[in-house]
Amino acid sequence: MDIVIYIYTGLTALDAIGPYEILSRLPNANIKFVAKEKGVIVTDTHFLKLVAEYDITEINKADILLIPGSVVGFIRESKDTNLLSWINKIDKTTTWTTSVCSGSIILAAAGLLKDKKATSHWGVVHLLKSYGAISTSERYVQEGKIITAQGVSAGIDMSLYLASQIVGEEKAKAYQLFIEYDPKPPFNSGNINEANTASIELAKKILTKEAKKDLTILDIVKNVQSLIKLKHGR
Amino acid sequence: MDIVIYIYTGLTALDAIGPYEILSRLPNANIKFVAKEKGVIVTDTHFLKLVAEYDITEINKADILLIPGSVVGFIRESKDTNLLSWINKIDKTTTWTTSVCSGSIILAAAGLLKDKKATSHWGVVHLLKSYGAISTSERYVQEGKIITAQGVSAGIDMSLYLASQIVGEEKAKAYQLFIEYDPKPPFNSGNINEANTASIELAKKILTKEAKKDLTILDIVKNVQSLIKLKHGR
Repeated sequence: MDIVIYIYTGLTALDAIGPYEILSRLPNANIKFVAKEKGVIVTDTHFLKLVAEYDITEINKADILLIPGSVVGFIRESKDTNLLSWINKIDKTTTWTTSVCSGSIILAAAGLLKDKKATSHWGVVHLLKSYGAISTSERYVQEGKIITAQGVSAGIDMSLYLASQIVGEEKAKAYQLFIEYDPKPPFNSGNINEANTASIELAKKILTKEAKKDLTILDIVKNVQSLIKLKHGR
Repeated sequence: MDIVIYIYTGLTALDAIGPYEILSRLPNANIKFVAKEKGVIVTDTHFLKLVAEYDITEINKADILLIPGSVVGFIRESKDTNLLSWINKIDKTTTWTTSVCSGSIILAAAGLLKDKKATSHWGVVHLLKSYGAISTSERYVQEGKIITAQGVSAGIDMSLYLASQIVGEEKAKAYQLFIEYDPKPPFNSGNINEANTASIELAKKILTKEAKKDLTILDIVKNVQSLIKLKHGR
């Protein structure tokens, strides 16, 4: 089973690594980390680097395609027509096409979410509408073979659900036990609708700071500014 | 703030990446991925490779030290006296010394958990006793400046708690919101004491299979066999 995880400069690592840690336990899983150019890929924090062993020209099909998100990198990716064509090509071959966090904006830009229910990170979920998607605030949303998940950590929940669809609930439960996924967050602040105002303001400030840190000359500043204003947030 | 994450052949990526995704948002965080030899580090699945930018000879201190776990690699690491000396040296300089999953066995082998409460992945937590540690089944356990966490995903909970100790609860809550950590696992199977027998048996089979896959000639087979028997499990 070919599981293709697309990685790119500025991705948020946990978006990819959460689902990878579950999906890699599927029988006959063959996970391929794929980028525009193979080699070292720098994540959003700049501290962590992952290795892409394939470039997109080498990959023509997948059973599962996963597009992770990023703080600002997804804006550049969602304007890359060459990438969007590749995503469309791979999607035609998949059993499942999935995203985590702002990865859904890239799927939407590829035209795959038109008139479909989808979700994303709370900071960017409002952007889905401009691509004709129906934005929701579920932890993860399935529409046919497409599953989109909320921000960063939501990929773990989504991939457990996906695993259960592929190999059944019993095996998925074993994968959950394997990674001892018995979450006990010390605070109740992970949901934008339940977090207090101070946490939301601080989280927006962090988003802005991280976005600025992550800016490169390759990013289109005006688009980034529209993101970091987060005027549609909450 | 220097946050040193030790990575090694066969590590379980989420053990490191979960805490990294939280701790990297700390003000002035400077995260260093450190290995015995700098370069590409192959994880337990063999599908994912991370980059270590430093080798242990280049790192003499840390504010936070994090030791992630692995399926079998931790056995090799816990017998490496050169590594254990380095861990002891770094620990003398830290404000916090932490582990996720079987990373606590490496801390224990370094002598840092003697007579201390600690935890680990359910599959190996029984090994803590042989190093004089007091094993517990809490999600994460603090004893002084040492915090150990249960398996794989527990590092996210542990690092949120750690962040709150460093910058206070308000900021930690914002980090939780940043990664939208509002866990909604589709099943209730992440805790060995709540999972059903079939899930436990399957999870043990997966552990055995992954352990065999991860064996290299560098691993000491008799020690691995004692692990995969899991005779003390549950």
